[in-house]
Amino acid sequence: VTERIAILGTGLIGGSIGLALRGRGDDVVVVGYDIDPAGLEGAVARGAIDEASESAAVAVAGADLVVLAMPVDRMEAVCRSIEGAVPPEAVVTDVGSSKSRIVGQGESSFGERFIGGHPMAGSERHGIDAADGDLFDGAWWILTPTHGTHSAPYRRVASLAAAVRARPIAIAPDVHDDLVARLSHVPQIAASALVDAAATAGDREALLGLAAGGFRDVTRIAASNPDLWVAILRSNSASVLEALRGLGRRLEAVAGMLEAERWSELRDFLDRARVARTELFRKPVYAGDPAALGFLIPDKPGVLAEVTTTAANLGVNIEDLKIVHSTEGGRGRLVLVVSGREAAERLMGELGALGYRAERIEIDD
Amino acid sequence: VTERIAILGTGLIGGSIGLALRGRGDDVVVVGYDIDPAGLEGAVARGAIDEASESAAVAVAGADLVVLAMPVDRMEAVCRSIEGAVPPEAVVTDVGSSKSRIVGQGESSFGERFIGGHPMAGSERHGIDAADGDLFDGAWWILTPTHGTHSAPYRRVASLAAAVRARPIAIAPDVHDDLVARLSHVPQIAASALVDAAATAGDREALLGLAAGGFRDVTRIAASNPDLWVAILRSNSASVLEALRGLGRRLEAVAGMLEAERWSELRDFLDRARVARTELFRKPVYAGDPAALGFLIPDKPGVLAEVTTTAANLGVNIEDLKIVHSTEGGRGRLVLVVSGREAAERLMGELGALGYRAERIEIDD
Repeated sequence: VTERIAILGTGLIGGSIGLALRGRGDDVVVVGYDIDPAGLEGAVARGAIDEASESAAVAVAGADLVVLAMPVDRMEAVCRSIEGAVPPEAVVTDVGSSKSRIVGQGESSFGERFIGGHPMAGSERHGIDAADGDLFDGAWWILTPTHGTHSAPYRRVASLAAAVRARPIAIAPDVHDDLVARLSHVPQIAASALVDAAATAGDREALLGLAAGGFRDVTRIAASNPDLWVAILRSNSASVLEALRGLGRRLEAVAGMLEAERWSELRDFLDRARVARTELFRKPVYAGDPAALGFLIPDKPGVLAEVTTTAANLGVNIEDLKIVHSTEGGRGRLVLVVSGREAAERLMGELGALGYRAERIEIDD
Repeated sequence: VTERIAILGTGLIGGSIGLALRGRGDDVVVVGYDIDPAGLEGAVARGAIDEASESAAVAVAGADLVVLAMPVDRMEAVCRSIEGAVPPEAVVTDVGSSKSRIVGQGESSFGERFIGGHPMAGSERHGIDAADGDLFDGAWWILTPTHGTHSAPYRRVASLAAAVRARPIAIAPDVHDDLVARLSHVPQIAASALVDAAATAGDREALLGLAAGGFRDVTRIAASNPDLWVAILRSNSASVLEALRGLGRRLEAVAGMLEAERWSELRDFLDRARVARTELFRKPVYAGDPAALGFLIPDKPGVLAEVTTTAANLGVNIEDLKIVHSTEGGRGRLVLVVSGREAAERLMGELGALGYRAERIEIDD
């Protein structure tokens, strides 16, 4: 049967998803809507969508999967506005750069049919012209399951990520928000501040063109769209503020080392960063036939976050997860399907150290 | 006649200069020395030098041009140690990332035969294995003339830069030091601090691998050699401290905007940086037949800095410069040769606005 996927917001991310999906030749119809008519027309012209809809409500009618790909400051309102139009069996996901608030609204609007997501790919460019069917190739696509998450919608969204050649991985929403504050939102602010500090040297501005490749690399993301970034920083402001203060403390510490000529301390600082940067992009183990683990968990918030984040820390991908809540409350059973037996063993060991008694089980479809 | 060029320090920069020079097939002999015997052997093996010398003094004996390419913390001592060994007609230059102190020592050791230089190209890698004959292709190579600078040695060093396919440009030493603090040294510290702030999230360190391309770009230079960087930051610590405080103030201002929810102010900040970043790498005018300008200048420090920095600001390259000091003191005559008549006209206009009465003259060889 033909599957119908509705993409709301056909800019860089939404357009790239459409291009990647339509490039596969699967039996899928991609329907798109964008509040900017030119952007929507561009999505049709570029072949990112099969059909342009006249409204978000029309786009989601009859859809099997709805992807929210508008700027983060509009997601909560869009959730509320399409609540009644999304078919009762459809799964809804988003691609927003912050998760706690959006997942809260998504679950309030769509219940267990909502799964939050965030592809870790992007560009300093934006809009449909910058869309690229290869944008997600090999990139991580974070999914943010909660205690309300069920198996079928989780698998549906994980398979969307895999279909565009990304690598789905599960992390709790609040851990995600703290992580992206440090990996994306504060680096964005720092890049802008570095350009600003260099550029406001009055009549020396033209000399900036003398900069070497290092400055180009460091400041490339400062060319990004400011409206999108205000929306992102606003939606994650508590985590961003905390991470920004952490950066400020480190810069003050370095200034202190320079002032007091504590050169060996400065060397240690630079060397620690060098080691961390060099280790940064080791590829986690991520291959093999699916293997399942089952174990009892206390039926309360925080536990699923601990389990999924432990798996992500190990580079273990969760292909499926299912929570069976006990009818008596207080306990539940969690079943995880991960990629590869070796990964399952490592995760079991780590969970054991955290007090969970996980065991290998047969995969049950 | 065969020219003899001595490169002291055959690492990334020295080795790359050797590779670029020897790749041209000119009638040149490149002699090298390095305190690390393995590095020196590597330079021979990679074809970066024709001859390996057993000491710096042996390398410079008989040289026409000496290039100091060791780490900046060793340059002043090397200047003093080879003072007596450098032939009286030889020109000496360096490639250090900070200039005021090194140029002071260089002129003290070699007088008008010393011309400070800094190629704006590099890599987070180091050593002869990272050397690359194309490293300087199209890159700026800053020369830092002073009131002590004469024509012949300036032209000799500018032609070395051109020979390795870089674009020589003149800026005063102190302006250079302030500029690189903001374009290179503080971005280096910020990149390390961003990695450190991300990496010290305890058990979440493995999650760093989820970072998208933006974080990779911003933090790439954090993988650089910490010993080289301590030496660089130490040699330019006053300018670095000032620039670091400028960055800190901007980050604090952004934190204030987040806290007080001043979103339009945050947008303005990000937009200003976006515009500056987008304008950053406009190519300055840099072509045409040589054109000469002559004018009187007060014979005092600061004047040559103003003139050369004005030219650099306009993207006007100074191919030659000659200062004729008046025997009565108080006044001197400056002759500049720049690339292209159009550039000469623009520079003349700008100098006129600063009170200099420059006029076009015939080029006199």
